[in-house]
Amino acid sequence: MNKKDLILDAMLELLKEKSNASISEIAKKAGIAKGGIYYYFSSKEEILDSLIDRSFNEIIENCRIKLQEKEADALLKISILFKAYFSQHVNSEIDTYLHLPQNAELHQKSLAKILMEISHILAEILKQGVEEEKFHCDFPDEYAEIILSVFTFLLDPGIFHWTINEIDTKLKALANLLERGLMIPSGSFSFLYEIDLSVQES
Amino acid sequence: MNKKDLILDAMLELLKEKSNASISEIAKKAGIAKGGIYYYFSSKEEILDSLIDRSFNEIIENCRIKLQEKEADALLKISILFKAYFSQHVNSEIDTYLHLPQNAELHQKSLAKILMEISHILAEILKQGVEEEKFHCDFPDEYAEIILSVFTFLLDPGIFHWTINEIDTKLKALANLLERGLMIPSGSFSFLYEIDLSVQES
Repeated sequence: MNKKDLILDAMLELLKEKSNASISEIAKKAGIAKGGIYYYFSSKEEILDSLIDRSFNEIIENCRIKLQEKEADALLKISILFKAYFSQHVNSEIDTYLHLPQNAELHQKSLAKILMEISHILAEILKQGVEEEKFHCDFPDEYAEIILSVFTFLLDPGIFHWTINEIDTKLKALANLLERGLMIPSGSFSFLYEIDLSVQES
Repeated sequence: MNKKDLILDAMLELLKEKSNASISEIAKKAGIAKGGIYYYFSSKEEILDSLIDRSFNEIIENCRIKLQEKEADALLKISILFKAYFSQHVNSEIDTYLHLPQNAELHQKSLAKILMEISHILAEILKQGVEEEKFHCDFPDEYAEIILSVFTFLLDPGIFHWTINEIDTKLKALANLLERGLMIPSGSFSFLYEIDLSVQES
C-alpha cells in the first residue's frame, strides 16, 4: 500500500475514536514521521478532503465495475447502477463526520461530486436506451442530473428526515415520472422502489 | 416596527460592513441596550438564523400573495409561482453570507426550508390541475418536491457553476420531463425556460 493510503487509513481509524486528531497522532497511527505527512498533505483538512474523495471514488468505481460485468440493455443497466449505488455506503465514520454541522460544506461538495459522477454514468445508459429505441429522450444528460438531484439532495438523510414510507412514495413518484418522461411502459422502473433503502447511510 | 425586526435590520446592515459584528455593535446599530438584544435572542447565531428565516419567509409570502391576486388555472398559476420566485432574491449580503464555506450548514437548512415551503404551494397547484382535468398526476406532492430539488439544489449557483446556456438546457429538459409526466401538450411549460435567470442570486 502506498504512503498516501496509509495516511488516509490512519485518518479513518482516528475518526472512529475522535473528531479532532492532530497531525502528530495521524503520523503515529500511520507509522510515518510527521514530516512524511507534510510531504503528501499540507493540512489535516486536506487529508480529510482526500479521505472523503477516496471513499466516494470507490463507490463510483464499484458502480462502473458492476456495469461492466455483463452485457445488458439500458433498463437492466439502470437497475444494476442503482442497486450498486445503494448497496454501498461510505464508512459510517465518514458519514457521521460529513453530517456534523461544521462539515456541511464538505458534505455539500461531496453531494455535488457524486451527482456529477453518477449522472455521467446514468446519462450514458440513457443514451444507450435511446439507441436501442426503448427510451425516448432528447435530454439524457439533464434527465440524469434531475434524477441524481433527487437521490443526492431530497433523499439525503442528513438534510431531510423522511420516514421509510415517505421515501418509498417518493421513489414510486420518481419511477412514475421517469416512465412517462422516457415514454416506457408503466412499471418498467419498479426496481427503484424495490431497493432496500435501510442499508443506505448517506 | 417591533424591536425584533429592528435587531434583524441592524444585523443585516452590519453584514454589509463585515462578517463578524459583535452583540454590542448590533445593539448600538439597532439603538437598543445590549440587554434588550438578549431579551429576544440568546446569541448572534440565533439573530442570523432569524434574519435568514425572515428573508426566506418574505419570498414565500410574496409568492403566496402573487398567487392570490387573480383566479387562474393551474398552468398559469405555476408560471406565476415561478416568476414570483425568480423575480425575488434574498438580500445580496445574506446571499453572500450563506455561500461562505463556514455557513454551509445554514445554507443547506435554508435550501431545505425553501424546498419544503414552495413545494407545498406547488403541490396544491398540481392538485388543482388534476381537478381541472388538465394534469394527470398521482403523486402531486412528490412531483412538486422533485421539481423543487432541481431548483434549490441543481440550480443553486453556490453549489454548481453552470453557464447560462447549461441552465437554459436544464430548464428545457425539466419542462420536457414535466410535460410528459403530467401528460400535457409539449410547450405548455415553456415559461420555465423563458424566465430571466440573470436576476436570481440564490
